[in-house]
Amino acid sequence: MPSIAFLECARCHARISADIPQTVCPQCLTAPAGSLFVRYDLSTLKSTDPRNVIERDAAGPWSGMWRYRSVLPSADPVTLGEGWTPMLKSRRHPAAWLKEEGANPTGSFKARGLSMAVTMARHYGLKKLAVPSAGNAAGALAAYAAAAQIEAYIFMPRDVPFANYVEAVAYGAHVQLVDGLISDCARVVSERKQQEGWFDISTLKEPFRVEGKKTMGYELVEQLGWEYPDAVFYPTGGGVGLIGMWKAFEEMEQLGWVRGSKRPRMIAVQSTGCAPVARAFEQGETVSTMWQDAATFAAGLRVPKPYGDAIILDIVRASGGLAMAVSDDEILASILDWGRNEGLFLSPEGASVTAAYDKLLASGYLQPSDRVVLFNTGAGLKYTDMTAAAMKLKGLASN
Amino acid sequence: MPSIAFLECARCHARISADIPQTVCPQCLTAPAGSLFVRYDLSTLKSTDPRNVIERDAAGPWSGMWRYRSVLPSADPVTLGEGWTPMLKSRRHPAAWLKEEGANPTGSFKARGLSMAVTMARHYGLKKLAVPSAGNAAGALAAYAAAAQIEAYIFMPRDVPFANYVEAVAYGAHVQLVDGLISDCARVVSERKQQEGWFDISTLKEPFRVEGKKTMGYELVEQLGWEYPDAVFYPTGGGVGLIGMWKAFEEMEQLGWVRGSKRPRMIAVQSTGCAPVARAFEQGETVSTMWQDAATFAAGLRVPKPYGDAIILDIVRASGGLAMAVSDDEILASILDWGRNEGLFLSPEGASVTAAYDKLLASGYLQPSDRVVLFNTGAGLKYTDMTAAAMKLKGLASN
Repeated sequence: MPSIAFLECARCHARISADIPQTVCPQCLTAPAGSLFVRYDLSTLKSTDPRNVIERDAAGPWSGMWRYRSVLPSADPVTLGEGWTPMLKSRRHPAAWLKEEGANPTGSFKARGLSMAVTMARHYGLKKLAVPSAGNAAGALAAYAAAAQIEAYIFMPRDVPFANYVEAVAYGAHVQLVDGLISDCARVVSERKQQEGWFDISTLKEPFRVEGKKTMGYELVEQLGWEYPDAVFYPTGGGVGLIGMWKAFEEMEQLGWVRGSKRPRMIAVQSTGCAPVARAFEQGETVSTMWQDAATFAAGLRVPKPYGDAIILDIVRASGGLAMAVSDDEILASILDWGRNEGLFLSPEGASVTAAYDKLLASGYLQPSDRVVLFNTGAGLKYTDMTAAAMKLKGLASN
Repeated sequence: MPSIAFLECARCHARISADIPQTVCPQCLTAPAGSLFVRYDLSTLKSTDPRNVIERDAAGPWSGMWRYRSVLPSADPVTLGEGWTPMLKSRRHPAAWLKEEGANPTGSFKARGLSMAVTMARHYGLKKLAVPSAGNAAGALAAYAAAAQIEAYIFMPRDVPFANYVEAVAYGAHVQLVDGLISDCARVVSERKQQEGWFDISTLKEPFRVEGKKTMGYELVEQLGWEYPDAVFYPTGGGVGLIGMWKAFEEMEQLGWVRGSKRPRMIAVQSTGCAPVARAFEQGETVSTMWQDAATFAAGLRVPKPYGDAIILDIVRASGGLAMAVSDDEILASILDWGRNEGLFLSPEGASVTAAYDKLLASGYLQPSDRVVLFNTGAGLKYTDMTAAAMKLKGLASN
């Protein structure tokens, strides 16, 4: 595993030490302070054959996303078996792969970021972690905190999917339901963290969730034979995965681990019920504005103003991609379509992506021969209450 | 992939052709007819190094359980990424591993058996598959049938976990809820299958679900460095996994793929609310009798008389193991224990096993240094309604 050279502010590019726990950039002169990205000295890895490095590391305990330990911070992992998820070829679309992140521990992609962030929290000796969550981050933090025997303080909207609530309680976290959205939950964490001694492990407010999520970028390229696809579709709430994948592509190019240099077009997908990034993209803005009255059954997309909006918009544009929104009706139709025709039960967030793919094929923006990776970020099983309601399924006796 | 030499009846040892679809033994003279096991000519594999064979096959599309294709029927797989699930070392027990089958597609171990059985159903050109299910088999059949574009007819108890119902509907299966237990569902399938043209894909009534499930045996041995553990704990409803693992051990010994010859003690775990196999074991019987008024929140264990009871009892005894039951209170306590202390949200069936392990450590039957594999057969996320009710968690607005 490499040593961390320094943390770099995404906004002012200050170099910050990783010897002590850091949140956001302490040197940014104007708010909001920039997120910090981990920078390594990767020179010893440069021009190695990734197949040798990665496959050596994938043996034994270094399975799952830890096969990429050569490009992750050096620390004893808090692991529950996250990463190296299936890349499933579509039955119907000749050049589409679905990346099944529901196979992760706690049933979502959030496991990657929080495995890494809790690993570093334990490394630094932190004792109390707090997070606002639209749903899946809560379960993931609760699980990894339990595995590390660190206390977790979790704030979720009261109408979060039921599974997110039950799992967080089962993992023994301190769970508080808040009347409002994730932005209201974030305010509670901000107001109370100093007094309570909580370390704020929110999206893009500490450097390591991005490092865990970046493994999705390494993984999709490795699973395609160390080649880029033409486009990557990503449901965008907080956007950490999209940011992490872009960082992975940058690192892989430095290392010479990817053939070709044409990075994929990044397609950030939101719901028409909460589409701050898509709106800012369409209006040519560099940051988003708070989305009023956010409402969608794709719970993970109900983020009215992501902290990393400027970074997301920058990446989407640099990639030649776009940000777009689909309706809840289109999401539900795509859940049923992929269930019945592919045998895959998508989360609403994942189905926003498959719906968007259909639209971009229909518009001619993409051709059926363009190689695309569609991210299903969570298991459909985590949303049975919401999906059943949308499907107008009657409840059963046990429910 | 090897050719099938023949199918062998587990009861009368008749050799049956696999050239056409088979259900149970057509030559057994007395009821119940024996289950059929697949026999191969494995001579060309004998004394090979499994690491070479398996790792070669694990590359490319042959991931997951299909890394074992050299010992599986030769057919084009219907796959959703099943198998090669995490083997997680317990934080607290120095020699215990938890085999996390909740990471499978549809969130349970049933994916392995039904991936294989639907693969063969498509191979034979079958068009309509029917199954009675206590829960997880329903979702798995529905998913693989959708992936193969074969019709699925599914019969479940009305009070099945909600997730099992929602997923089966989302996959487009024909779902019917029955007032009663899985045994009542099985009766409906038996009565209607001839008229409706359904192929009965029930537990141990066709040869291939065992073949899929046996990959759990190969996998746990490979993940322990091609060595046996001292004991394997398995939650036993229908018991196919236990039967499949035992078959895998037999094949691995024939192939010379496992070091040592002392097979693990097989511990079959049930709920005190439905414990036909444990009762028969304690009473020294070779078959079980129907359990009256079966009731447990471990839905998968609510099988009042498994079709393979005689085989299960025989294996448990031959292994020097045992069959035992734990209470629903013990199951719930173990769910909370493993959630809070290990970061793992177990299914009730999985927690029956962890509870049983605690009891056998306390009784001195096992030592803490004995290497054990504990099977969590499904994701805790599939049981949020039942687990929340047992935890007396209040419902949320969205539920």
